[in-house]
Amino acid sequence: MQSGNNQAKYYKLMEHIKEEVLMGRIKPGDQIPSENILSKEHSLSRHTVRKAISMLVNEGLLYTEHGKGTFCLGRQNKRSDSKNIGVITTYISEYIFPRVIQGIDGVLSGSGYSIMLKNTNNNTTNEANCLQDLLGKDIEGLIIEPTKSALFSDNLKFYEAFDKHHIPYVFIHGYNTQLEGKSHVILDDAGGMVSIVEYLAKLGHKNIIGVFKADDIQGINRHKGFARGLTKVGLSYNPDNIIWFHTEDKEVKPYTYIKQFIEEKKEIDAIVCYNDEIAFRTFELLLKLGVKVPQDISITGFDDSYFSENCPVKLTTVNHPKEALGQEAASILLEMLKDDNYQNNPMQKVIEPKLVIKDSCVQR
Amino acid sequence: MQSGNNQAKYYKLMEHIKEEVLMGRIKPGDQIPSENILSKEHSLSRHTVRKAISMLVNEGLLYTEHGKGTFCLGRQNKRSDSKNIGVITTYISEYIFPRVIQGIDGVLSGSGYSIMLKNTNNNTTNEANCLQDLLGKDIEGLIIEPTKSALFSDNLKFYEAFDKHHIPYVFIHGYNTQLEGKSHVILDDAGGMVSIVEYLAKLGHKNIIGVFKADDIQGINRHKGFARGLTKVGLSYNPDNIIWFHTEDKEVKPYTYIKQFIEEKKEIDAIVCYNDEIAFRTFELLLKLGVKVPQDISITGFDDSYFSENCPVKLTTVNHPKEALGQEAASILLEMLKDDNYQNNPMQKVIEPKLVIKDSCVQR
Repeated sequence: MQSGNNQAKYYKLMEHIKEEVLMGRIKPGDQIPSENILSKEHSLSRHTVRKAISMLVNEGLLYTEHGKGTFCLGRQNKRSDSKNIGVITTYISEYIFPRVIQGIDGVLSGSGYSIMLKNTNNNTTNEANCLQDLLGKDIEGLIIEPTKSALFSDNLKFYEAFDKHHIPYVFIHGYNTQLEGKSHVILDDAGGMVSIVEYLAKLGHKNIIGVFKADDIQGINRHKGFARGLTKVGLSYNPDNIIWFHTEDKEVKPYTYIKQFIEEKKEIDAIVCYNDEIAFRTFELLLKLGVKVPQDISITGFDDSYFSENCPVKLTTVNHPKEALGQEAASILLEMLKDDNYQNNPMQKVIEPKLVIKDSCVQR
Repeated sequence: MQSGNNQAKYYKLMEHIKEEVLMGRIKPGDQIPSENILSKEHSLSRHTVRKAISMLVNEGLLYTEHGKGTFCLGRQNKRSDSKNIGVITTYISEYIFPRVIQGIDGVLSGSGYSIMLKNTNNNTTNEANCLQDLLGKDIEGLIIEPTKSALFSDNLKFYEAFDKHHIPYVFIHGYNTQLEGKSHVILDDAGGMVSIVEYLAKLGHKNIIGVFKADDIQGINRHKGFARGLTKVGLSYNPDNIIWFHTEDKEVKPYTYIKQFIEEKKEIDAIVCYNDEIAFRTFELLLKLGVKVPQDISITGFDDSYFSENCPVKLTTVNHPKEALGQEAASILLEMLKDDNYQNNPMQKVIEPKLVIKDSCVQR
């Protein structure tokens, strides 16, 4: 029993020191505190401290110089020429993500890099695990689509660690507002939505419902553009015409509300959707309810994805650059890798989206 | 000029020795030939040989034991616990691939592994580059969808190298016939196509066109199942009713032939397609030509992808396991990683597909 307990103790100290190195608080070449100090700080016997340190020396994380002390060798040997780049997205297989990843891979593999792919399934705990995991890998850089970027992020410490290790990163699609000074490639989501509202107003639509995602920065910005567009064309913004949903209720909430609106015979000329997928599902719901698109109600999407193309009534939408966005992020990262001073030269790119007029809206 | 030439010579010898190590012909601990022998074998001065070797010692590939000779240190330090797995597919962003990759990632990341993703764009030269690149990476295992698996592969030497380095690999979707004894997870493509032909025959279809891909093993097997199904239901197989296409002409050839058949007023009850994508495009073509699906001609797909679901007439198809196939391959690889004798215990799994009846076929 006693020995099991001791094992847990030296193991805990090992993990603590590893974490310090991983997070960049102990850097390669730094001397680690003496056995005496560690033993006092952690209330452990010197025997236990010695065991933890000798294990870490064996693992190659620390090295001892005779008569001088114990030093940090670093997280990895030869990290600078690994030619590996971490890529974290919210999803791998859904919607436009595969094409964004394809764009990233195209540019990086063309320059001899390999991508290490992770996805968070849009869950912030998973995001923490992905970031921590990649911190322990031999990567030269990182491209990341932040998870639930509209919410306050608890994962900032990992970005600080990447900064300390001089591993550059580029945000795509969105970024946490706490990190707005860092490099990113995003779409002008608000501008895209303004162009949709202007188009609908020109066609004579007045009663416009908006369906928006509340937990990512794209959703927030698309909503902002929706409100700004209404003001621009002289229509009033009515909060009762907005349906907000979160990742967790996206399968249900938008359609429950739209169904209720239709059953209440609410006056609706158009439904402006967060993206093509929501618009496609809205189309299917309206079809079931006997409402004709676009004759009775116009619908718009966003992203110009296969949902827009494959919908029985092709959806008017806004072009999402997909591959181009991935390519742009990869090119920026390659630039940062060449720039020793990249932390003071953030590269930020906003891609202007274009309205793509198809068949889902008519003159009122 | 002379020095440029010498540089090229020592560099060439360095590359040669690296290749020998990468391909597993020189193993960690092996002694490399003496300066004398290398100098004779490669017709180089001893000075040039010495320079190449000292560069490789600096790079950490070789080490010298005083008075004993020069030895191979290995491709990488501590490769066995990198927790990295290579994944090579033909495509990243198209069709069902994202969901297969999602399945692989789900199982592997659940066990603490990270995936290093590569795609060949279905080009065998790219495949060679991906395999060579991953041989130089710190990976523990590999999952690979072989490129143009029906053609004779020139890339076998890389699999031999993985064998020599004791890095297990699992084929998915198909495998080169030269490697049929290795681990794989495939779909019973022939069986799936038999069930389609049986279903069409039961509905009274007699004149059935088949559209098949000639350069992957799935295409070959789906065609086999088509022929076997016809025999089973008592219809005769007519080579003139088969349209073969390759990766390079897939956008054009199937539709040129179908259009010609329609214009010639060839008697056609049904068109059986290699996959849903081809079936979807065939649907669009027939619509343009004024041919009604399924009233005039029935169509079938394969894979039960979004093309089947989003087609204006939902396509009768065969279920492709997608995520499940990826999960299965990842589970098998995890088993192999625990088995020191994995090379003598190949694990092979054939997934039975299921007919999925939707709206694209009617009784004749």
